[in-house]
Amino acid sequence: MINPFDDTYFMKKALQEAEVAFDKGEIPVGAVIVVEDRVIARTHNLTELLNDVTAHAEMQAITSAANFLGGKYLTNCTLYVTLEPCQMCAGALYWSQISKIVYGASDLQRGFQTMGTKLHPKTEVVSGVMAEEASELMKRFFIQKRNLN
Amino acid sequence: MINPFDDTYFMKKALQEAEVAFDKGEIPVGAVIVVEDRVIARTHNLTELLNDVTAHAEMQAITSAANFLGGKYLTNCTLYVTLEPCQMCAGALYWSQISKIVYGASDLQRGFQTMGTKLHPKTEVVSGVMAEEASELMKRFFIQKRNLN
Repeated sequence: MINPFDDTYFMKKALQEAEVAFDKGEIPVGAVIVVEDRVIARTHNLTELLNDVTAHAEMQAITSAANFLGGKYLTNCTLYVTLEPCQMCAGALYWSQISKIVYGASDLQRGFQTMGTKLHPKTEVVSGVMAEEASELMKRFFIQKRNLN
Repeated sequence: MINPFDDTYFMKKALQEAEVAFDKGEIPVGAVIVVEDRVIARTHNLTELLNDVTAHAEMQAITSAANFLGGKYLTNCTLYVTLEPCQMCAGALYWSQISKIVYGASDLQRGFQTMGTKLHPKTEVVSGVMAEEASELMKRFFIQKRNLN
């Protein structure tokens, strides 16, 4: 039997969030957090709107999921995020003890893998899910931004 | 002439915040952000009360200062924090491009220096200001916590 709730299914939801960010003029990164095939948080980057460098999609998703669960640890959760998390977000994910992180496009400049940020030893990482779509959206954003300036 | 607004002066304010956290049963870390000898944000750790691993004193201080300034970059600001920032907070400070970070006690286990988190190249770091007081408060907290359990 095919499980419809695979990583691509949830990454599509994260991509939808990234598109909402795009439409708001934000760097288009989206995230969802999932527990037992159920989405409990969906967020997108809001750093421009909120004038706040901490308002990355992942940070909001962590806060939102913890709020939903009534506890600060995300030990049974999976984060889907369209772009590789940065140092800050990976550092927050470390504290959350999240089970699994699935990301789309790699960020070779400022992603946590390049920066060497440590995750919780129990956290599993999957990369490259719908990476092309996430990457295309980012490229489209920066081309549009350049043309507007 | 003696400048009354030295690092110790502002670290005392951060320590006052840490004491507020202590009284709330939070791990006692406090922070203030200063621009031109004026405190524009004062915060303390609220991870327990808010059930949120992202609610470190520094994270709240960054958000609060950016809100006060009406812009997300803290290029003319100094952060005073009683404990060495973690990966998450250092990662947020990286994005904020803050001018200067002054911290009290070192965190040899989970501090950003041990973890290798990168700050913005323009950020100056001073450590060890009122480190003993900050460290004493932490020790007192964990002794009290152990005795209560």
